[in-house]
Parts: sequence; structure tokens; C-alpha cells
Amino acid sequence: MKIKMLAVAFATVLTSSFCSAQANQSAVIEDFKPSTCNQPGQMYPQVNSQGYARFRVIAPNAQSIVVSLGLGGAKGGTPLAKAEDGSWMGTTAGPMDEGFHYYHLTIDGGVFNDPGAMNYYGSTRWESGIEIPAHDKDFYALKDVPHGNVQQILFPSKSTNTSRRAFVYTPAGYDKNTKTKYPVLYLQHGWGEDETAWSNQGHANLIMDNLIAEGKIKPFIIVMTYGMTNDAKPGTIGSFSYVPFQTVLVDELIPYVDANFRTIANKENRAMAGLSMGGMETHAITLARPDVFSYYALLSGGTYNPAELKGKANPKLIFISCGSRENPDMVKKAAVTLKEAGYNAVSFVSENTAHEFLTWRRSLKEVAPLLFK
Amino acid sequence: MKIKMLAVAFATVLTSSFCSAQANQSAVIEDFKPSTCNQPGQMYPQVNSQGYARFRVIAPNAQSIVVSLGLGGAKGGTPLAKAEDGSWMGTTAGPMDEGFHYYHLTIDGGVFNDPGAMNYYGSTRWESGIEIPAHDKDFYALKDVPHGNVQQILFPSKSTNTSRRAFVYTPAGYDKNTKTKYPVLYLQHGWGEDETAWSNQGHANLIMDNLIAEGKIKPFIIVMTYGMTNDAKPGTIGSFSYVPFQTVLVDELIPYVDANFRTIANKENRAMAGLSMGGMETHAITLARPDVFSYYALLSGGTYNPAELKGKANPKLIFISCGSRENPDMVKKAAVTLKEAGYNAVSFVSENTAHEFLTWRRSLKEVAPLLFK
Repeated sequence: MKIKMLAVAFATVLTSSFCSAQANQSAVIEDFKPSTCNQPGQMYPQVNSQGYARFRVIAPNAQSIVVSLGLGGAKGGTPLAKAEDGSWMGTTAGPMDEGFHYYHLTIDGGVFNDPGAMNYYGSTRWESGIEIPAHDKDFYALKDVPHGNVQQILFPSKSTNTSRRAFVYTPAGYDKNTKTKYPVLYLQHGWGEDETAWSNQGHANLIMDNLIAEGKIKPFIIVMTYGMTNDAKPGTIGSFSYVPFQTVLVDELIPYVDANFRTIANKENRAMAGLSMGGMETHAITLARPDVFSYYALLSGGTYNPAELKGKANPKLIFISCGSRENPDMVKKAAVTLKEAGYNAVSFVSENTAHEFLTWRRSLKEVAPLLFK
Repeated sequence: MKIKMLAVAFATVLTSSFCSAQANQSAVIEDFKPSTCNQPGQMYPQVNSQGYARFRVIAPNAQSIVVSLGLGGAKGGTPLAKAEDGSWMGTTAGPMDEGFHYYHLTIDGGVFNDPGAMNYYGSTRWESGIEIPAHDKDFYALKDVPHGNVQQILFPSKSTNTSRRAFVYTPAGYDKNTKTKYPVLYLQHGWGEDETAWSNQGHANLIMDNLIAEGKIKPFIIVMTYGMTNDAKPGTIGSFSYVPFQTVLVDELIPYVDANFRTIANKENRAMAGLSMGGMETHAITLARPDVFSYYALLSGGTYNPAELKGKANPKLIFISCGSRENPDMVKKAAVTLKEAGYNAVSFVSENTAHEFLTWRRSLKEVAPLLFK
């Protein structure tokens, strides 16, 4: 059981004999505040300064309610207990990792969302979300700086016979600087997520706004679309192939974006990045179409073997990252191997995070200044 | 109990003796299909060709589940019955009105969303949504026509000390026709909804795309933002005042839009419309600031009295509408009265709809061709 932050007031009474769940609970600091992911006006769920989460749900006649938190949350679920007023309350057994966590309620054996929380698409469903404020949360905060816009576009896709949706981040000033052309990052979500993930739970737009306002990067466009093109039935990753998505991305979306936005429409000004399954897509598509992208980034999504690049692809950058609770040694070693083989490889490990969105927010912040040099 | 559509096969056996709930249920046609508002891959809820809705929820140990449908839905709720496999199923007692309906589940006395359906902000919470296909649904369908974009902007607001969110619809070609300037419609949601309503459940962008593609309107921009500016606690409409919102809209948002989009920044090319509470805001703000807008539209949101306009405001158009299940006589009479007083007033009544989004989708379709003439 991990304790990341201990209030000074409690530090003196904490001895090794307190290392049980009960002892941790007794050390919970009662400074809980509504989660920043709550629906307007909702007081629960709440989070305290140590990273504990507390839930409250109204369902007077329910038999049992358990909160299921994902990776980096409290493992095994947090059962809620019924109070006399018909509400169910419970607090996680320990502090949670900093950052964003998907979760849901299991009520009487069925899966439902917490009516107090906002919804985020993950695990092929709109899940509830909760945010444990990170010590470095400033980099993805909404600040009083010039803001870029995130726009929904509907682009024609002959290969799937549909109008498909993408979100396009254009940096502040895009609409005014009508002569300026911009490089483009194609940025993919993970399995079970969709094209809403990077701007909703990822705050990609705010990360960019802040980096640009601080002068740390030159402005570029980000395009985000759905990457599980042929996955008609959610949950069937077994039948998933990247090839139909490659067609949508390379043959349909990129030409549409280049025709409708002021892009610098060449390989040198085009990057692809993805998290988890989106990293695997990035890996496969950048290798299958080395003529399209110059910058590759895999966020918790594997790495490249120098052998598969040799004589085929010559990227200007390979960025590989993961959370420290994933496989950081693999990531670090892979960068060394790629560097030894002559590639400009950079690794990044997000401290104290798992296969979750704080890892990927931080990865975006780290990779953005390395792109389009 | 109303029956809107009777399949020919059943018409011959329908007599007056069947006019009970049980008789209607026996006439339910088993051609149910997943609602178009379902989450990806979800088979329930379903809708049949008559407008009945059928729900299925998994919660093996629940004691009771009731579906609460809003206006135009089946009144009083649809109780679900438990099947042997642990699922709960039920069908509405009668056909529902065409169009979009908010709903939620009451599970063991608590309010939750249907995990099968997507979520839509209404009633100051993210509700579940279901769509009964309308006979005229073509006008808000996603078609293979040039699509405008809907973009999220974050604009600075000194009066509320925040960066506030708005969504901006720019018509197809906006990014290419960099010399063209456009009129702007400021379009408001209703009580308990927010700035997402008009593009999510309203399909305002698709309505515009289709009208433009058919040559029925000249392209214009639509701006949608949150209208309950001072309503810190959702649900407290009693304390609501339009004045703080007027400041945000007129003194902050409009100057920002005029500075950052290619608008024709004058009164003659600016319209304001709103549904329900957004109509009341439109009424109040157009009268308080007659220098700002030339076109006024109230959708299920009251009307204007000629006396309050006289010597003060001289709009180019007053559009008033509602559903036929609301107060259509008031709307028609108000238009006559306004016309007699010399105003260009137009009324519209949406057939067989209540205080719901199909009324407002149709109203947008009707008013759009009358704007910016």
C-alpha cells in the first residue's frame, strides 16, 4: 500500500505498526473537495490532499454498490456502505495515483455510471471519470492565455462509405494569421477510447495553449480521429487490423486536412503519435508508409526495432515513453539501442503513473517541443 | 393514448374495443432496432416503426428499475420486469412522439443513466437520450454533402473571471474562402441544458449543412454558449437573472467572435435565437440592447408585445414557434398581433411535438432561410 503524501500533522504518529488498511484509513485527512471531473453542482465524488477518493451515491433500495477503479486506482474496488439517509458512501482504501482515472459503479450486479461524475469514452463505453490533482497539474490547466480551438470536422471516407468525425486543434491566432501554414501532428487514442479522448481527458488543447504561451514550442495543428476503423463490435480487439485505419488516415483524412486547413503538406512537417493501441497503430503505419511522416511517437505503445527501420524509414525523431509503473526499463533501453543504430531517439518516463492519461499528458508535453525542428 | 402510425397488417383488427393499454401492447410490431443514440455496439434501447421504445438493463440483484421519460415520452414511467437471465426489460405503454427524448433510470430509488445510451446534457445533468425517427428526419441527417465544422473556443470573460467555452459552427468553405465574411446567429439552449445541446441533440450543424447544400440559405456562422451564467447551483432557476449573461454575450463573446472570425460585425448581420429559457433570454437581451441584433427568434420561449418594442427596437424579423402540443394558438395569435403593429413576424408550429428538441430542430430549419435577407 502506497502513501504518497503525508500531512505534517500526522507524520509524527505514523509508525510501522500503522501499515494496515485500517491504520491508513485512520490517517485520512478530512479535506475532501469535489473532483474537477464532476457534473455541474455535484458534490461527489470528492478527493482529498492525499489522493484518497470518496464516493456518495443515492439509491435507497440497492443491495450493494461497489466502485470499480481502473489502473492506478484502488485495486479490487471500493465497496460503499449504506447510511441511514439512503445514501451509500465509501472511501478508497489508499491514495490513488495522480491524474485521471476511469471508473464505474457496480450496482446490484449491473454496471452503471456515477451520476455525480462526467463521462469519458474509455473501455468501449462512456465511463465515469475522476481526477486526482497532480503536483504538476499546471501544465494542463486552463489559464488566461490565448487559446486555440478544437473543432469537429466531418470528412468523407470512401473506404468506409461514411462521413467520419475528427477533431482538429488549431493554435491561437490560426484564424487571424491567414498567411501562416502549420505542421500537423496526427494523435491517436488507445483501445476502447475514441477521437474525443485527447481533448476531453487528455487536455491536449490546454497543454498546447500553455506550451505555445510559454514560447516552448512553435504552433502546430493536431488532428485526432477514431482509430478502430474496422472494429464494428467494441471489445473485439482480436479481430482488429490497422490496415483499414491506415487507408482512412493516409488516403482520406490527411488529404482532406491538407485541402481544408493551412498545413505544410509534406512529410517533414507531419508527425504521428499514439497512446497504447494508438502507439501500435503509429508503429505499423509509419513503417508501412514511410513516405508520410517524419516524427514518430509511441506513448505506452511499444517501440521500434532498428532492423525494421533500416533502409526503409528515416525518421527525424523517435519518441518512446511510458509510466514508471509500466515498463520503464524497456523504454529506456529501446532508446539507447535506437541511438546506437543512429536514430534520433528520445525516451521519457512519467514518474508514479501507470497506463493512464497523466502518463500521456506528460508525454505530449515532452514530445511537442521536439517536433518539427 | 395516442397511436400515430398503424401498420396496415394490423389496421383491420383495430376497433374501438382495443383502445386500452393492453390492446395497444398486443399490437406492438416486433421490428425493434437499436436507437440511433446508443453507445457503440449497444443493442438496447430499441425503437420500433410505431415509435414504441424497449429497454433492457443488466442488474441481476436490483429490486426495481423504472424508465423515466420526459415530455413526449410515455408518461409516468415504464417499469422494467426481471427476466430469468438477470436482465430487466420493458416496452413503453404506447408510441412516443417523434424526435429526441431525455430519460433516465430509477434503480432501487436512485437516478442513473442507461449504460446502453449516449449522454446529453439536460435537466442540469448528463441524461440518457433516445431518438424516435421522425418522418422528416432527412433534414437533420448526416449526408454526403460539404460539412461545416463545429469548434470549441475558449474566450476570456472579465465579468466572470474565467475562460468560458462556446461552440462555433462555421459553414463548409469557411477555411477556403478567406475573403468571405459571414453573418452570425447567436443560438441559446434551454434551462438545464448547456452549450453542447444545439450541436449534440439539436444537430444544428447538420441542419445548416443540408440547408446550404440545397441552396436554401446563404451560409452563416452560429455561436452557442452557456446561458445560465450566474446559476452557480444547477436547479435554482428561481435566482436566475439574464443580466450577467447579457454582459458575457454582448460585451465579451460578441467582440471576441468579431475579432477572431470573419464576421460581418454589425447589427444588420447579427441574429439571436433561443429555445425555452434561451427564448426568454433572447427576448430580454434583444430589448435591453436593441443596438446589437436585427433578427429575433423565440423557440418555445414566449413572444414580444408590440408595446415593448415600440420606439425602441426595430427588428427585421421576429420569429416565434412552438410544438403543437404546447401553446400553438398563442404563437399564431402573437404573430398576427405583431404583424398588425407593423413588424415582420413569422410563426411556426411543429406538428405532433411538445417542448422538445424536434420542435427546435424544425424551428431552426424554418427560421434559417428568413435570416440576413
